Amino acid sequence: MAKYVYLFTKGQADGDRSQRELLGGKGANLAEMAAIGLPVPSGFTLTTEVCKSFYQHDRHYPEGVESQVNNALKKLEQEMAKGFGDPVNPLLLSVRSGAPTSMPGMMDTVLNLGLNDQTVQGLINLSGSPRFAYDSYRRFIQMYANVVKGVDGDIFETLLEDKKRAKGIENDNELSAEDLQQLITEFKDSYRQVLNLDFPTDPQQQLWEAISAVFGSWMNQRAVTYRSLNNIPSHWGTAVNVQAMVFGNMGNDCATGVAFTRDPSTGENYFYGEFLVNAQGEDVVAGIRTPQPINKAKYKPGDLPALEDVLPGCYAQLLDHRNTLEKHFRDMQDIEFTIESGKLYMLQTRTGKRTAQAAIRIAVEMVGEKLISKKEAVLRVLPEQLEQLLHPSIDPSVVKNIIAKGLPASPGACSGKVVFNADEAEQQNKLKEKVILVRIETSPEDIHGMNAAQGILTSRGGMTSHAAVVARGMGKSCVAGCGDLHIDYEKQVMVTKSGHTIKRGDIITLDGAAGEVILGDVAKVQPAVSGDFGTLMSWADTFRTLNVRANADTPHDAKIAREFGAEGIGLCRTEHMFFDVKRIQAVREMIVSADLQGRERALSKIMPMQKSDFIGLFREMRGVPVTIRLLDPPLHEFLPQNNDDIADLAALAGMRFSEVKEHVEELHEFNPMLGHRGCRLGLTYPEVYDMQVRAIMEAACELVKNEHYKIVPEIMIPLVADVNELKVLREKAIQVAEQVMATYGVKVDYQIGTMIELPRAALLADLIAEQADFFSFGTNDLTQTTYGLSRDDAGRFLPYYIENGLFLSDPFIKLDRAGVGQLVKMGTEKGRQTRPGLKVGICGEHGGEPSSVEFCHQIGLDYVSCSPYRVPIARLAAAHAALKDE
Amino acid sequence: MAKYVYLFTKGQADGDRSQRELLGGKGANLAEMAAIGLPVPSGFTLTTEVCKSFYQHDRHYPEGVESQVNNALKKLEQEMAKGFGDPVNPLLLSVRSGAPTSMPGMMDTVLNLGLNDQTVQGLINLSGSPRFAYDSYRRFIQMYANVVKGVDGDIFETLLEDKKRAKGIENDNELSAEDLQQLITEFKDSYRQVLNLDFPTDPQQQLWEAISAVFGSWMNQRAVTYRSLNNIPSHWGTAVNVQAMVFGNMGNDCATGVAFTRDPSTGENYFYGEFLVNAQGEDVVAGIRTPQPINKAKYKPGDLPALEDVLPGCYAQLLDHRNTLEKHFRDMQDIEFTIESGKLYMLQTRTGKRTAQAAIRIAVEMVGEKLISKKEAVLRVLPEQLEQLLHPSIDPSVVKNIIAKGLPASPGACSGKVVFNADEAEQQNKLKEKVILVRIETSPEDIHGMNAAQGILTSRGGMTSHAAVVARGMGKSCVAGCGDLHIDYEKQVMVTKSGHTIKRGDIITLDGAAGEVILGDVAKVQPAVSGDFGTLMSWADTFRTLNVRANADTPHDAKIAREFGAEGIGLCRTEHMFFDVKRIQAVREMIVSADLQGRERALSKIMPMQKSDFIGLFREMRGVPVTIRLLDPPLHEFLPQNNDDIADLAALAGMRFSEVKEHVEELHEFNPMLGHRGCRLGLTYPEVYDMQVRAIMEAACELVKNEHYKIVPEIMIPLVADVNELKVLREKAIQVAEQVMATYGVKVDYQIGTMIELPRAALLADLIAEQADFFSFGTNDLTQTTYGLSRDDAGRFLPYYIENGLFLSDPFIKLDRAGVGQLVKMGTEKGRQTRPGLKVGICGEHGGEPSSVEFCHQIGLDYVSCSPYRVPIARLAAAHAALKDE
Repeated sequence: MAKYVYLFTKGQADGDRSQRELLGGKGANLAEMAAIGLPVPSGFTLTTEVCKSFYQHDRHYPEGVESQVNNALKKLEQEMAKGFGDPVNPLLLSVRSGAPTSMPGMMDTVLNLGLNDQTVQGLINLSGSPRFAYDSYRRFIQMYANVVKGVDGDIFETLLEDKKRAKGIENDNELSAEDLQQLITEFKDSYRQVLNLDFPTDPQQQLWEAISAVFGSWMNQRAVTYRSLNNIPSHWGTAVNVQAMVFGNMGNDCATGVAFTRDPSTGENYFYGEFLVNAQGEDVVAGIRTPQPINKAKYKPGDLPALEDVLPGCYAQLLDHRNTLEKHFRDMQDIEFTIESGKLYMLQTRTGKRTAQAAIRIAVEMVGEKLISKKEAVLRVLPEQLEQLLHPSIDPSVVKNIIAKGLPASPGACSGKVVFNADEAEQQNKLKEKVILVRIETSPEDIHGMNAAQGILTSRGGMTSHAAVVARGMGKSCVAGCGDLHIDYEKQVMVTKSGHTIKRGDIITLDGAAGEVILGDVAKVQPAVSGDFGTLMSWADTFRTLNVRANADTPHDAKIAREFGAEGIGLCRTEHMFFDVKRIQAVREMIVSADLQGRERALSKIMPMQKSDFIGLFREMRGVPVTIRLLDPPLHEFLPQNNDDIADLAALAGMRFSEVKEHVEELHEFNPMLGHRGCRLGLTYPEVYDMQVRAIMEAACELVKNEHYKIVPEIMIPLVADVNELKVLREKAIQVAEQVMATYGVKVDYQIGTMIELPRAALLADLIAEQADFFSFGTNDLTQTTYGLSRDDAGRFLPYYIENGLFLSDPFIKLDRAGVGQLVKMGTEKGRQTRPGLKVGICGEHGGEPSSVEFCHQIGLDYVSCSPYRVPIARLAAAHAALKDE
Repeated sequence: MAKYVYLFTKGQADGDRSQRELLGGKGANLAEMAAIGLPVPSGFTLTTEVCKSFYQHDRHYPEGVESQVNNALKKLEQEMAKGFGDPVNPLLLSVRSGAPTSMPGMMDTVLNLGLNDQTVQGLINLSGSPRFAYDSYRRFIQMYANVVKGVDGDIFETLLEDKKRAKGIENDNELSAEDLQQLITEFKDSYRQVLNLDFPTDPQQQLWEAISAVFGSWMNQRAVTYRSLNNIPSHWGTAVNVQAMVFGNMGNDCATGVAFTRDPSTGENYFYGEFLVNAQGEDVVAGIRTPQPINKAKYKPGDLPALEDVLPGCYAQLLDHRNTLEKHFRDMQDIEFTIESGKLYMLQTRTGKRTAQAAIRIAVEMVGEKLISKKEAVLRVLPEQLEQLLHPSIDPSVVKNIIAKGLPASPGACSGKVVFNADEAEQQNKLKEKVILVRIETSPEDIHGMNAAQGILTSRGGMTSHAAVVARGMGKSCVAGCGDLHIDYEKQVMVTKSGHTIKRGDIITLDGAAGEVILGDVAKVQPAVSGDFGTLMSWADTFRTLNVRANADTPHDAKIAREFGAEGIGLCRTEHMFFDVKRIQAVREMIVSADLQGRERALSKIMPMQKSDFIGLFREMRGVPVTIRLLDPPLHEFLPQNNDDIADLAALAGMRFSEVKEHVEELHEFNPMLGHRGCRLGLTYPEVYDMQVRAIMEAACELVKNEHYKIVPEIMIPLVADVNELKVLREKAIQVAEQVMATYGVKVDYQIGTMIELPRAALLADLIAEQADFFSFGTNDLTQTTYGLSRDDAGRFLPYYIENGLFLSDPFIKLDRAGVGQLVKMGTEKGRQTRPGLKVGICGEHGGEPSSVEFCHQIGLDYVSCSPYRVPIARLAAAHAALKDE
């Protein structure tokens, strides 16, 4: 017969920690603690197999479960020297869920099981406290009714409140034993009224109904939703742990507490924890009484007495257990303990949650202590966690008045005065005022204002809207697509759904990591990248095979990227250079020019500026590759839309207002994303790409000639759908490049490649590779076209999709492996069929997202490129991917 | 040694008609005619292999060519009993190009070769006419200088004009022999001045230089451009035909003419042709003299004398040759002939070009005559040609004043008064005025105006813009994307680039097949679908395996579709029903409703109308399948944009103006093509699809219950990117359908399938097929997303792409097999992996384009669906594809 029930008691256990799937996380670790001799209250675990069978057979148990439980119960009685249902010396039980993976608070628990009108007398004898015993009984009825029978808990709370009011008292613990006895009667009456049943007095019945209720809670709505949100398969099932009750609330030689083997906030290697004398676990959680520290390692004046002083013997044992657990589990542990009448029990141990900072410090120090290897250390820190370290964050201790929520578009916390347009942001910035730029949506014309602001808040657009992408690139905080806001530019106010009206000049705080808009200025914590961070990253770098580059458009961004460990620039978007306030007029003049001569005249103004940008970029990136994408957005993005600006432009270009106005209107597009952009512009306005290639090559030649730089510019041609487009543009670029090199009399290695960002390019990558020295997958646009999904418009339905599980994740955040990933893989394979060893990378937003980085590693890409602030995340994710691959 | 030179002479030839690639079309047919005993002037052909070698070896000939030409020339001299360069009895030659496929007028020809100051005397002796001989010599110098040496022909024309002026005469033929002798001297002087060379007197030198010049003309700019436009590979090369000259201009027993073995306009089986007495071929082409009919089959009073009366013996021979040729070539032939001194020579025969009507009649009649099989008959008519038969066209005999050109967006010719808005189009239509609706672009709100107009002209948008698609669907003529126009709504005028100003009310004519805008009302030819058309189509239907359905949204369209032979409806776009003027208000009310109740109230107004539409559709389509697509476009397409209409809507919906206005603005999308549409709407506004499914099922149930109809409604869910979308919507649709059937108490077979129109759907078709009873590829949108190319915005660069050979064809017209086709093939294969025998079709514009239909046949689709007017084209194309496959 199958083994359904696993016993554990100090020094001995049927299971061990490797059996999480069978025993659940809690059960496996209880078995492990028991086996290595820690004082665990004895008990047994009903396996997840029982749960599966329970659901497969219409909530009936497989044969053998009952007898195995009865046998286990007998051993438990022997072990504890108590009898289940014994009116003199009663054994009381806890019945708890325990799934293979933690689902905190999602499933049910029943405590003090085994009490009835007889055994409560035994408990009075054992504890010497009728008040304690009746209170335990009262709590049991309440919990049982609610958890096992689904009776609304309010019924009992109301009776309790009535009782306190009648007695004129405020706290539960002021109720006398008699009060509690009366309450027990009232509770039982209510139970009978609601359920038309007597409260069960038979402990066996109590036990089986409780076990079924806990198994049943696996399918409650809360648990089902939690699992679907966290991708936990429902076929796993939960285990049920039945354990002897121990009480931390039987007197002043009793206590209960939680501890971490190291500080979970800082990672410092000292024993950190809190406890309460004469209390139960839920009292610690409830936060009504101030907990006391377990030791004086960080003692401050005014701190309450420490456990090491109050119960020194117990503390010495606990400290000993702490050392045992860390050595045994080789990781920082989160422990729960209870002291019953001076005797220490270990209730739970599990891997402790920790901040990013703590994770790094613990991992690095454990390597020093020879507890773990460097590989393990690298795997102990989650790439996503690093985000916390790279931006300021809201001080977790302060109270926040959240007035609206949007998308967490770019992390970091910041505060400032609200302004509603980019020009004012810039003016205020010059006056040293900190501002938050609030827009319905941003456009390239707002760049200077975004740059001047502390953070950006928009009411429209998704995670990859203009505001979000630019903010992430700049490392600025951004809350995007905040539909709770109604922004009125004319009145210069925004009104939140919650009813707050925020005027121009009012101060707000953004938490870009949480997507929160908070009233007023809120205290922040500055990022502290300790030396351990560098150490860990250096280990990670030795394991990864994927290169990490950054998307950077300016020497400033390039510098940050390099500091964060970028090994090159994977994407420099030249159009961002066009938006500079000093250049945009020349760009506009170029666009509205009626003829080639006019365009060339305007381009000749832009050319020296582009060239000096490239020189700056190349200087910062000495010795590493720099991929420069030629102009990509449609021309209308550069043109003014309002009449004043159009008039300015007309004056500048020596044209009539109506002429310019008409030009602006003619350039309107229905679907600019699918419009006249990328190489389509390069082909129809060849002089633009000529100018850009010339600027790149002159910059490179100058540095090579005058400063003996080693530079490999990679010229990237965007939006290619067909090899012919690339062929023509490549030939032209080579012509210009050769001409520039001849003029300077130097030779520069350069490459010409393309961005694969359209499905057709991936499908025909074998042909396109004939004309490309490298591929860079533009996964943002590739996601848009593969899904037929505009990232700027998806805000109206994508949240619905995520909430309802239609999409498991936002494909603009996490690369869609099945669809978009299939194209990336196909494109890479086809490209390398034609050109073995073709260099391939990705340069979309996905380049800094760990799961996407893992995918890129798996399909054999050469590099990912992401925003400078995400470079460490990508480096660590690449190391994880490589280590998992071993 | 390779054979480079192929001789032909009456009754004997080295080559035959199967050797087009080697001998060129002209050479192969000359050989064939010679071999079957027709009187061809003897000659020889230098093969295309010589041409290839000529270009591979820097314009030198392979060894052996020279000796083979000399031998051939000797045989020619024997045959003709003349000597090349013989001053008494000179052999004169023509040197002509002849490529494997016809490239009319693209390459060079030299006639009268072999003349010099000596041989011209021989020609005088032979012809008895010094004037004729000198004129031939003069022409030869002129042609040789121009063709062989590249001398500007104007130099000689000027000398000729000067001479005529000096003599005070008007026509060339008034010049005397002496005048011509003087001209010859002047021509030779000019030749020497320009080239610093004497005109070559050696016939051998003349011959080789002429051959090289004709081979050289294969690479002239004209020929290169023609080949690239017509997809003729340049490696084919041309052959060169050297032939004894025969003269139709040596006197009144001489003549030259062209003839068709049947009437090329009507296909009627009689000998049709024209000739000129005492003339050369170029005189017939020049059109200076009125040609005479060859016979009196269609004699009209006033016609000039016929050949059968003028030279009855020659005519009898010619008629005999005509019969020989038709029997031999088994197709209608286009013949050139010359009569020299009463002796008939056949200069050329080739398959004659013909109108669609003639093609059909000839094919059907030749089957009757047992000349060809039914399969051959079907293959003789090109599917594209049928277009001519299905719409009125401009009378080819009239002179057109073309004032602008745009895209040939929907065929057919029409005339009417210009109106600039849809409402006026409708009003004028009620007054029985014919109007042309002129818009910058059309939107769904213009539908009633488009319906009321004869044709539609737009200045923006491509071949698949709204105007184009709707017009084709309606079978209306449309010229779209006419960038030559500047339309001013305010002034109610349009100004063409050519400087014409057209006011409201002015009459214009559109030729939708040519993309022409023509001033005034131009005579038109009505489509005449003869009985032969039906016969041919019925044969085609027996050969094809691909089904042909139609895209039809109304009972009216469905009726036309069925008349044209549609075997079902492949796409009914339900949103077109929403635009009806009686319904649009309810639709708008639904959209702006703040809550579900409001939306349901509005939907309940629409539901009965949709239901009655479906009943009408089902009635027309009794017994065949009808695929109905649920709502697809984004909601904002239905909303009014101007303030008056918004105010109307607010009044109707009982809302404030500002509320509605805000709603309209909120629904704005950056890229509506990639926005909140298709199943994304169905998921977020489930009540809309519920209503539509209910309307479909109630319509079907009513007909089944009351009229015992057999109907299989196919419900199609659009814009699916992920199987989860389809799964949820399918479940909901089934729920509604089952409920309706239960209410009616009948069972209707229905299917639920999806449109594959996003790359991701094709990539994951194996998963999607789990939830789909059928697939229909929406190749319009699939082309847009695969290329990342908006059809509405492509007008600014796509023409450039086509003109410059970047794209070989417009992917919105001809399905892109390499990219989009790869996805269609992949999606079909993956879908059938999951669901063997899955029914798959396409319903984009490509469904009526022959090359795309062929592709659909090749990859094993079940059907194509196209606009009703293209159904016959698709049927014939499907037959061609199947026959080519055999």
